[in-house]
Amino acid sequence: VSFTAARHTERLTKRVFVPRPTRVVQVGLGHIGQAVARLINQKHDLALVGGVDVDADLVGRDLGDVLGLADPLGVKVSSDLTGLIKLLEPDVAVVCTSSMLDDIAQQLRDCITAGINVVSTCEQLAHRSPMNGELWELLDMAARDANVSVLGTGVNPGFIMDSLPLYATAVSQRIDRMHLHRMLDASKRRLALQRKIGAGNTVERFHQLTKSGTLGHIGLMESTYMIADRLGWRFDEVETVLEPHIAQDVVNTPYLTVEPGQTTGVRHVIRGIRDGEACLTMELDMRVDAVESFDSIAIEGIPSLNLVFRGGIHGDVATRAITVNSIPRLATAPPGLLTMADIPIVHALDAV
Amino acid sequence: VSFTAARHTERLTKRVFVPRPTRVVQVGLGHIGQAVARLINQKHDLALVGGVDVDADLVGRDLGDVLGLADPLGVKVSSDLTGLIKLLEPDVAVVCTSSMLDDIAQQLRDCITAGINVVSTCEQLAHRSPMNGELWELLDMAARDANVSVLGTGVNPGFIMDSLPLYATAVSQRIDRMHLHRMLDASKRRLALQRKIGAGNTVERFHQLTKSGTLGHIGLMESTYMIADRLGWRFDEVETVLEPHIAQDVVNTPYLTVEPGQTTGVRHVIRGIRDGEACLTMELDMRVDAVESFDSIAIEGIPSLNLVFRGGIHGDVATRAITVNSIPRLATAPPGLLTMADIPIVHALDAV
Repeated sequence: VSFTAARHTERLTKRVFVPRPTRVVQVGLGHIGQAVARLINQKHDLALVGGVDVDADLVGRDLGDVLGLADPLGVKVSSDLTGLIKLLEPDVAVVCTSSMLDDIAQQLRDCITAGINVVSTCEQLAHRSPMNGELWELLDMAARDANVSVLGTGVNPGFIMDSLPLYATAVSQRIDRMHLHRMLDASKRRLALQRKIGAGNTVERFHQLTKSGTLGHIGLMESTYMIADRLGWRFDEVETVLEPHIAQDVVNTPYLTVEPGQTTGVRHVIRGIRDGEACLTMELDMRVDAVESFDSIAIEGIPSLNLVFRGGIHGDVATRAITVNSIPRLATAPPGLLTMADIPIVHALDAV
Repeated sequence: VSFTAARHTERLTKRVFVPRPTRVVQVGLGHIGQAVARLINQKHDLALVGGVDVDADLVGRDLGDVLGLADPLGVKVSSDLTGLIKLLEPDVAVVCTSSMLDDIAQQLRDCITAGINVVSTCEQLAHRSPMNGELWELLDMAARDANVSVLGTGVNPGFIMDSLPLYATAVSQRIDRMHLHRMLDASKRRLALQRKIGAGNTVERFHQLTKSGTLGHIGLMESTYMIADRLGWRFDEVETVLEPHIAQDVVNTPYLTVEPGQTTGVRHVIRGIRDGEACLTMELDMRVDAVESFDSIAIEGIPSLNLVFRGGIHGDVATRAITVNSIPRLATAPPGLLTMADIPIVHALDAV
């Protein structure tokens, strides 16, 4: 076969393919959801066709108006996900409504029933774990039966403390230990985040918050299990530490003041223990008095690897991006509940 | 549906799956091929079932003996790839015979015709580029027709200067510029590599070697095109620089001595120019007088990202690992010529 003949054949056999933008509905128009929707609207191959929220202040308003766009989008925010899907026939729903799988389960079922693929920032959807295993299996079966792909993503969980370190091990002949450390300087982050990490409390109040389950990072356990699952690590024990960072001096942020002796943030550590030794250490420090942000990945083995994101990765900015950048991957993904370790590598998308 | 009922259903409908090791034939038993074969032999889910080489000193000897294993493998090294495939019916062939696509094209055709998936360290197989485009298309069509997956991998190209930086852009909302820099301290690497990077020559001789095409890194252009292709970047111009590093003082390595004024290695830079500006810079320094090895990924955009592998990544060790770790990905990969940007993230495999 000569080159010319072969190229000619290809022209004849390849279907003419006119790409059309992927039609996306944004579910959840809170802080993250709105930012995600604005970014979808900026991307060349994506079309933002609708928005869903339960907030009575938003329902009925033009979506472009809610997002602060220059022009209206010509579609009103709806509180009825199933109705909107029927009306708009989107390709993908992006669900940014809660960190807990329980909370979004009905939204996922609505999308699955309607045959619509889903990308979600729900932290507990990042990977199966002992906390979400039963519900995960039910939703996974439903998605497979309906030939629908459902992807949990985000920067943490979803990237910096799970799928990216996993991809770093692509060059590993052998791994003895892995130590991930995310140091997040929250001093310039929004107030909601500063509150979430427990900044500005007495130590006593911090421990009350810890006990009531409102402190600590949702998703760190899911990241732990993504790594362990993929590397075939079975832990004898999984150890969790939640403790406060405490101010030495007064710490001022644009939103709050922390007195000496009060808490500046949270230290959340998960250790996967095997044969009496931590082979996986997940260390997450989020504090308003950090010297700098960084993300580090240290792998002991053959070869040993030492990877550092200098200056860290801005969680909000990055989560919006990876959520939107993941959307095109769903078109060719297998059905079921998927993680960032199940799909071809996601990368930045072209702007409009 | 209650949890119990659903779990029961799952038990009934899931097929009992008894995993069997993936059967692998190693094609090419030179320095890299032997190391890859030994690593395959150490992995739990892989079985090294045969070896192919044209070297008369190897053909007919037991493969375990050639690899220096403690025990014979009970299979002789063959020079007949097609015959060995017929005899052993492997799942995958790992091809480590040449850096040039032309050189391995017949081996790929033999595997494709026999319906055997392929992983290869051939640098020119890492991605389509202007140097390999015609042959790439022919092989791609043949592989698709035969429902065979063919993957080009390695650390460079394949990982550190293409698919890993691409995965870093998963968290990018917008990219303005990307600058990749690999600094490789070759002072302790094998003599073949020190020769390949042009160490220990007069500057005149270095430029002769450059002109004859024997210096510079095969695969850097393929990496350039993997990134550009995925990010949708069209360059007005692609600029290549090949220049020597020159010794100030005497440099001694275990294998050679470089006098002052002689060359210590090569600097290979590729710039992708758009609107008069380099939006992609690929900078590869390989020298026997480097202060340290490192790999860095700098992305300007939203957000800006600064990622560093401190101490770099050992090319030989890492290439063996990623080649072997990629093998299980072929079982569920689509047909055709694939790159590391086409398959779910590769990660380390369990040992035996």
